[in-house]
Amino acid sequence: MQMYDLIYKKRNGRELTREEINYFIQGYTAGTIPDYQVSALLMAIYFKGMTGRETADLTMAMVNSGEVINLEQIPGIKVDKHSTGGVGDKTTLVLAPLVASAGVPVAKMSGRGLGHTGGTIDKLESIPGFNVNLQPEDFIRQVKDIGIALMAQTGIITPADKKLYALRDVTATVDSIPLIASSVTSKKIASGADAILLDVKCGSGAFMKTRQDAASLAQAMVAIGKLVNRRMVAVVTEMGQPLGRAVGNALEVKEALTTLVGEGPGDLRELCLTLGSHMLVLGGVSRDTAGARARLKDLLNQGKALQKFKQLIEAQGGNASVIDSPEKLPAARYQSSVAAPEGGYVADIDTMQVGRAAMLLGAGRASKDDLIDHAAGLVLTKKTGDFVKKGEELAVLHTNRKDALDAITKLTASAFTITVNSPEKAQLIWETIE
Amino acid sequence: MQMYDLIYKKRNGRELTREEINYFIQGYTAGTIPDYQVSALLMAIYFKGMTGRETADLTMAMVNSGEVINLEQIPGIKVDKHSTGGVGDKTTLVLAPLVASAGVPVAKMSGRGLGHTGGTIDKLESIPGFNVNLQPEDFIRQVKDIGIALMAQTGIITPADKKLYALRDVTATVDSIPLIASSVTSKKIASGADAILLDVKCGSGAFMKTRQDAASLAQAMVAIGKLVNRRMVAVVTEMGQPLGRAVGNALEVKEALTTLVGEGPGDLRELCLTLGSHMLVLGGVSRDTAGARARLKDLLNQGKALQKFKQLIEAQGGNASVIDSPEKLPAARYQSSVAAPEGGYVADIDTMQVGRAAMLLGAGRASKDDLIDHAAGLVLTKKTGDFVKKGEELAVLHTNRKDALDAITKLTASAFTITVNSPEKAQLIWETIE
Repeated sequence: MQMYDLIYKKRNGRELTREEINYFIQGYTAGTIPDYQVSALLMAIYFKGMTGRETADLTMAMVNSGEVINLEQIPGIKVDKHSTGGVGDKTTLVLAPLVASAGVPVAKMSGRGLGHTGGTIDKLESIPGFNVNLQPEDFIRQVKDIGIALMAQTGIITPADKKLYALRDVTATVDSIPLIASSVTSKKIASGADAILLDVKCGSGAFMKTRQDAASLAQAMVAIGKLVNRRMVAVVTEMGQPLGRAVGNALEVKEALTTLVGEGPGDLRELCLTLGSHMLVLGGVSRDTAGARARLKDLLNQGKALQKFKQLIEAQGGNASVIDSPEKLPAARYQSSVAAPEGGYVADIDTMQVGRAAMLLGAGRASKDDLIDHAAGLVLTKKTGDFVKKGEELAVLHTNRKDALDAITKLTASAFTITVNSPEKAQLIWETIE
Repeated sequence: MQMYDLIYKKRNGRELTREEINYFIQGYTAGTIPDYQVSALLMAIYFKGMTGRETADLTMAMVNSGEVINLEQIPGIKVDKHSTGGVGDKTTLVLAPLVASAGVPVAKMSGRGLGHTGGTIDKLESIPGFNVNLQPEDFIRQVKDIGIALMAQTGIITPADKKLYALRDVTATVDSIPLIASSVTSKKIASGADAILLDVKCGSGAFMKTRQDAASLAQAMVAIGKLVNRRMVAVVTEMGQPLGRAVGNALEVKEALTTLVGEGPGDLRELCLTLGSHMLVLGGVSRDTAGARARLKDLLNQGKALQKFKQLIEAQGGNASVIDSPEKLPAARYQSSVAAPEGGYVADIDTMQVGRAAMLLGAGRASKDDLIDHAAGLVLTKKTGDFVKKGEELAVLHTNRKDALDAITKLTASAFTITVNSPEKAQLIWETIE
């Protein structure tokens, strides 16, 4: 078998066999197939696509390129959740303890943030002392003990995906549905998940800008699940404005804490109930999503979800007193209010730009080796549909970088589109694919 | 400027600027842009194409990546000729001395053969003593003295093309018209040509299988000429069967010698007259192709073309007595006749397969570092349209590799399609584009 023939075949629109895909992934992982042949194949895949069968085979080839975490010691159906990423997306901070408190075991690996999106691991690290680097055996023991553990992704799973992603990132081959779908699902399968809930975002702050593209990606992932015998449900949700109001690590933890007691922003709460009820059904602890939703509301209102979050923090060495005293979370030296340049309705928020503003305030990384400031970020005072008077507050910036405040204030203000007429009400949940 | 942005732009079907193309070629030649980004761009070009302007800019960027041979010391219009390659294509051996004898200065660089196609340089080296490695100053002096010199391509011209071609060869991005057109024309322009005649082959033995593809390539090259101010004429010609009868280096030199005295196979003679008459017009020594053709016939019949070939051989240290005694050319130890497995008309000859058979007999290289046997090859006894009786001779094989004879005899016989009915007469010259 020769890599040249695979490139030629795909370039001409033909389907690669499982053996060919295994040959490519094994050779690339081992370093016997060079980057320049792989990038040519990736560009051919960008143009010619992959069938569901090819995508599933690519997924499993990447799973098998590294170790697969074995969670069999943990009783119950292990349900993982993945979001395709957005701005202010602190859903995992709420969902993980919430579904754990309902009896679904949560053994979750998460990533760090890059560019305009944040990462769950960075958010957790804003809690003083919280340790995200667990050994696999401690990780499993903790889930058996308290039903929940969250750790940073290790390098031992899906090394092929890691290498491929780095190459896609510099060769303009990231935005290909079969490549995204196989990348996401391979990491989740290698992490040991029995079932996976996918939150596929669409809109200005998401990778997929349109509902159609998001639905295609969701379908591609659910199709992989069917072929590789993992139950997957995908929910297409809106990322046309930041989720909730807080963007930035400690600020998002604070918002998660209010949501865990049944308060918090309406969109964040609604998203957590929707995704959580699918997870309870996938995990076999509820018969249908209506029943699951009622149960989740109870768990929030009774403080059970918050209690589980406290257990999680304690188990991983964090200072659990932040639950009752959120002021113990890191806070930024400077705060600055962003004023509306004119009056009217907030018709649109350029979500990517809000994400970039938060990054510039110190909350995110422009490149992988940057350090982040857990205290930095911003909190939106107004969201889409709100009325605002000229000079009224749109957002509050939090930062330790005083010199950048003027520029970022202007950048943040310009992310808001203010119109005379009230916009249509934004929809949060678009569709469910399973 | 960043290479990523060029890949992204081309992938999305947009036109690259001259500055972007120069950045890419300069960076790739200098080694600051890695292979893996270039192969992704090449694949995007394969799918999205290039405009005439982009192709011309790519051509000149490759010309300027190395040295440009300065032929200004040689009076007259220097006309170069390029063939896209085929089997048994010994046209240059006839054309170069023929047009030189008409007063068009021939200062020509040629290549070696690879795979099923031969190269002029290998063919010339089958003449004992012939030296193809000239210094540029000696090359120019020889053209000034006797009007003709032929040398092997040097590494100093178009290093970008050399590097790009090697990458295309292993990433399935060779067969892209803008990439082929810029590769061919950049080499010819860097070789110092004022005007260029392009012989674009089509059919089973050619790179372009259909007349349409060949015409597209011809048009792309002529369009480059217009944009970079080099006169170019392209002739689309048939390569649906080997040209002439001989395939293999010394065997082709022998056939060229008979053609240089006005004899030789009809198709080879006709092709040389057609291409040569365009070259005389391009070189400004004839007013029209009809007049040029009459003049070329005279030069063949009067022995002037052969005389010029003799001068060339002498000037480059070769044994010129092969002109009168072709038996002094290398001859193979073994000859073997290929018999027709059935009677009928030769309806088709799989030209690629004939080329491969010659290669296996020792006439060509499977990979760049292989040595070739100048004596090896084959001579077709029958060509398309000929009638053959069962058991009658189709071809004669010449080789020093006795052990391979049986297999290659079968391979050669299977290249012939023999039918009951006489096929349509094969056309040689399809169209002229200028």
